[in-house]
Amino acid sequence: MNTREKLEHLREWMRTNDVAALYVTSADPHQSEAVAAHWKTLQWLSGFTGSACTAALTLTEAAFWTDGRYTTQAGREVDGDAFTIFTTGIPGTPTLCEWLRARLKPGERLSLPGEVLSVAQLESFRAELPGVVITADGNPAAELRESLSERPALPDAPVWPFPGESAVTPRVQKLAAERAELSRIDPQAAALLTGLEEIGWITNLRGDDHPLYPLFHAFALVGPGTATLFADRRKFTDDIVRALAADGWELRARDAVPEALSALPLETVLRIDPFRTPAGFLEAVPAGVRVSRGPEPAARLRAIHSAAEIESFLEANRLEAVAVIRLMRWIEENAGSGELTEYGVGQQLEHFRRQMPGYLHPGNIPIVGYGANAALPHYRPGPEKSDAVRPEGFLLFDVCAQYRSGTTDLTRTVAVGELTDEMKRDYTRVLRAHLTLARQRFPAGTTGNLLDAIVKSTLWREAISFNHGTGHGIGYVSNVHEGPGKISIELAPAFPWAHATPLEPGMVFSDEPGIYRPGRHGIRIENAVAVEEDTETEFGRFLRFRTLTFLPYERKAILVADLTREEIEQVNAYHHEVLERIGPALTEDERRWLWRKTLPIG
Amino acid sequence: MNTREKLEHLREWMRTNDVAALYVTSADPHQSEAVAAHWKTLQWLSGFTGSACTAALTLTEAAFWTDGRYTTQAGREVDGDAFTIFTTGIPGTPTLCEWLRARLKPGERLSLPGEVLSVAQLESFRAELPGVVITADGNPAAELRESLSERPALPDAPVWPFPGESAVTPRVQKLAAERAELSRIDPQAAALLTGLEEIGWITNLRGDDHPLYPLFHAFALVGPGTATLFADRRKFTDDIVRALAADGWELRARDAVPEALSALPLETVLRIDPFRTPAGFLEAVPAGVRVSRGPEPAARLRAIHSAAEIESFLEANRLEAVAVIRLMRWIEENAGSGELTEYGVGQQLEHFRRQMPGYLHPGNIPIVGYGANAALPHYRPGPEKSDAVRPEGFLLFDVCAQYRSGTTDLTRTVAVGELTDEMKRDYTRVLRAHLTLARQRFPAGTTGNLLDAIVKSTLWREAISFNHGTGHGIGYVSNVHEGPGKISIELAPAFPWAHATPLEPGMVFSDEPGIYRPGRHGIRIENAVAVEEDTETEFGRFLRFRTLTFLPYERKAILVADLTREEIEQVNAYHHEVLERIGPALTEDERRWLWRKTLPIG
Repeated sequence: MNTREKLEHLREWMRTNDVAALYVTSADPHQSEAVAAHWKTLQWLSGFTGSACTAALTLTEAAFWTDGRYTTQAGREVDGDAFTIFTTGIPGTPTLCEWLRARLKPGERLSLPGEVLSVAQLESFRAELPGVVITADGNPAAELRESLSERPALPDAPVWPFPGESAVTPRVQKLAAERAELSRIDPQAAALLTGLEEIGWITNLRGDDHPLYPLFHAFALVGPGTATLFADRRKFTDDIVRALAADGWELRARDAVPEALSALPLETVLRIDPFRTPAGFLEAVPAGVRVSRGPEPAARLRAIHSAAEIESFLEANRLEAVAVIRLMRWIEENAGSGELTEYGVGQQLEHFRRQMPGYLHPGNIPIVGYGANAALPHYRPGPEKSDAVRPEGFLLFDVCAQYRSGTTDLTRTVAVGELTDEMKRDYTRVLRAHLTLARQRFPAGTTGNLLDAIVKSTLWREAISFNHGTGHGIGYVSNVHEGPGKISIELAPAFPWAHATPLEPGMVFSDEPGIYRPGRHGIRIENAVAVEEDTETEFGRFLRFRTLTFLPYERKAILVADLTREEIEQVNAYHHEVLERIGPALTEDERRWLWRKTLPIG
Repeated sequence: MNTREKLEHLREWMRTNDVAALYVTSADPHQSEAVAAHWKTLQWLSGFTGSACTAALTLTEAAFWTDGRYTTQAGREVDGDAFTIFTTGIPGTPTLCEWLRARLKPGERLSLPGEVLSVAQLESFRAELPGVVITADGNPAAELRESLSERPALPDAPVWPFPGESAVTPRVQKLAAERAELSRIDPQAAALLTGLEEIGWITNLRGDDHPLYPLFHAFALVGPGTATLFADRRKFTDDIVRALAADGWELRARDAVPEALSALPLETVLRIDPFRTPAGFLEAVPAGVRVSRGPEPAARLRAIHSAAEIESFLEANRLEAVAVIRLMRWIEENAGSGELTEYGVGQQLEHFRRQMPGYLHPGNIPIVGYGANAALPHYRPGPEKSDAVRPEGFLLFDVCAQYRSGTTDLTRTVAVGELTDEMKRDYTRVLRAHLTLARQRFPAGTTGNLLDAIVKSTLWREAISFNHGTGHGIGYVSNVHEGPGKISIELAPAFPWAHATPLEPGMVFSDEPGIYRPGRHGIRIENAVAVEEDTETEFGRFLRFRTLTFLPYERKAILVADLTREEIEQVNAYHHEVLERIGPALTEDERRWLWRKTLPIG
């Protein structure tokens, strides 16, 4: 069935139900960054294979929105007769609500998919479309897909205990910590957990529902005396179910959330994160139950890692560094061969990683960009679309991995031949920005937007900037991008609490400034860093970052004369630590190579 | 009548009106920083003479809150038997709402003074005291004061045209600009202006209702076809009334606002700033009129000064610099005399200012702190409380003035004798922070909180900070502290839109970092700076600051070895400009003195 036939079916449903407009999305009920095929309703409807898209339709028109990364792809994949295709953020482009406002009369009905739409999104529709009757009790596009037997089932990969043997805060302690935070809201507070990373955290369980992020589909409800996990029983061994029960957790069917909410005692204060809770769930909450909106306490608790967990992160980064050093050496050896391709770099890294103990799987589709390709921050080569690497300029790789001991995310930009002066100047600028965050002491209470500004101020002085945050939170055998904090001036919709989340000891972030010159080159340098206590003075309590990633910078690209004495010492101390920490895990040849790469500068 | 007798009268009113609790404040309906005696209801009730205070009373108890600056003073001035005295922000201290919550039962009545309470404050009371019946239609404490003939009338100083002869954007253009902004909200949008600085701006009128700020008490209502100024007719000459009428302004009685609001056409969209609009006014708005909440467009327009106005600011700063250079020389000559006192410094400055053309009056009560006194950022000497200046250490003065050509605000910390190494190190740190803002280029769209973090990051590196923003907006022959923007991480309640206000060309701010070591010394350096266009590159549009204040830094306190080459050049270029700009207005002796003070460093 083609897109136009599917749209005709949906319009039949609209006419039958007296609905004037329909909103179709590709979100899941957890507002996950990576959505399972089961929820990719709009991709199924439109044929689009990118990730960012929304659509609206009336009985006579349909419109499709994607962002600048996907404009060309949408033009190729989406039927332009069925949909008007828009790129969000371009001046003059209507927003979805503006488009609807121009088409809907007061009293007409708009249907939103309440099972995947967040409470905040529903309210934003209500505020922007006064007079329109808005319902959020169905998901007709998903139902149509289901009825045509074209909707994949939810993933059914088994759930596994995390971390198995090594140290992690026990499940009972986590539940107690969550309840302690809830009791600060109200003695009768309960929380509905919808983020898969919160659920993985609080249950000490992981899954394989997504090829990149080791999480599983579930919801959870934690009250003063109860803890319920809503998930598919078939994913759990009897041992896990027994262990959960012993720690106070009841396992119920994934679709039993509304039933459980409707049975909440009337004195309950239900904490929900309006940005992550499906609007449809709220309809099941009894009228007498007070709803408290705000960040989910578990999200902050999850992001604060214990000292043992930070050690484990370090171990994961050490394993990944060994694989990446082998990759860097291999790139250097093959840069002049004419055989090296961007895609091949990612393949070769995977080969080296498989030799490392505890390696699970990649944490991203590798970003490997040669030359001008690296100026596109999210460029990813594929088997068919991959440039050859020539022996000149920069090659950038931004790669993430899942190890049993932790999640890693790192970027290096390496010289594969001669560099221009502009390339060296830009590399040195990026390095200085990257070093700024790594050594920046800051008062307790500081939020990430301020740190992003401090890092970028070093570039602003030369009228240079970059269009992404300096850093994002990194999960612990979980998502690569994880809130609630973020080191970013711009408030990303996926991290709605970032500007209200002070950095706290135990939080892990990326430190990844960049400079992108379209058509010329792109440079980014990324380490993972953990927040830790620094000092307390008459001016207050100060925190600092501890670096977790140990890999050489590109000595050939550093203009030592542009660095301060402090920066030169910082690079040399870091390189010394790279050799100390990673050297022992390398062969003698590799160690000699690393020794040369980490020689003092200046 | 003493405090306890006044409280008894108020409690009689409460019993008569079935009111269980009363809130008393010292705010005015404009949420002015400087409140006229007419509105200082709580000071009258309690005997307190400081500025920051609130109080609540029930039939049996009364509590009084002030901040840390005034704790000692409140203990001395306020009857501790009548009021429990609290200092806000101290751990364990109840907030006013917490205090009330512990005393009020559901269904009991709390009376708030709706004529001075903002809409946002009323809503915050409602949110924090669910179940309590809240009324905001009276101001019994002010009425009691009135009935006892103890309430001073509103100031009746005449209104004068601004700026008289020199250039300022004409009144008709300002009204058109305000209407253009309103039309972006809605074609039928009207705005209620309550800030005295907005009213001074849009009418091109000034007044003398306050000894420090040349503004007058009024409200204004601007609609698509009407513009009404609500003020006491006796303050206006017939000429001004005619000029206003010619520019489309009707003058009505100050108390006619509710009547005008109640007559608004039903299609009106009324823009109000919830943080500045008296809650009582909203009750007059017809039910059909839609209220749009947000920053008042005039507040942003007011803060963006034209090139001619910036030139005028420069002229005011030039005049003030001449007076201050005379003061600095006088301090140097008298530092060893044993006669110099903190209070005397402010008196002497006033003497020098009166010799300058266009000088109106001071813009603050001078902050002049010697030694450890300067570690209190708001320390002000008086005729009875003023330390002698000995020939050692630092003397700090932070002084503001009103000239016909502009408002000035500057701080210098000068050596009056030998300095310790710690003093020099701290002075150099403050200077570096101050220079950081002055030379910081930043992208259009940057908000002040980010710039404050960039400035403070230079101190954070040494685990040092200071507890105020790097800068505040400076009015134009208006308030010394003016929004909507502010260069401050902390969101100050008086500047509720600061974090949503990008800096724009034409805005004027202070650049005043400091270091305060209680019991030892306090250092602050302050210039006024104007935002201006810088450059546009492939990375976007960038802005920068232009310095408006030209006065020497303290060469004796600068550790040149702690400065970068760039900073040394910045100081030398600035000192060169001080001599160039201010020298010609000085006597030969003074010019020689200034030449010595502005010799190159390093």
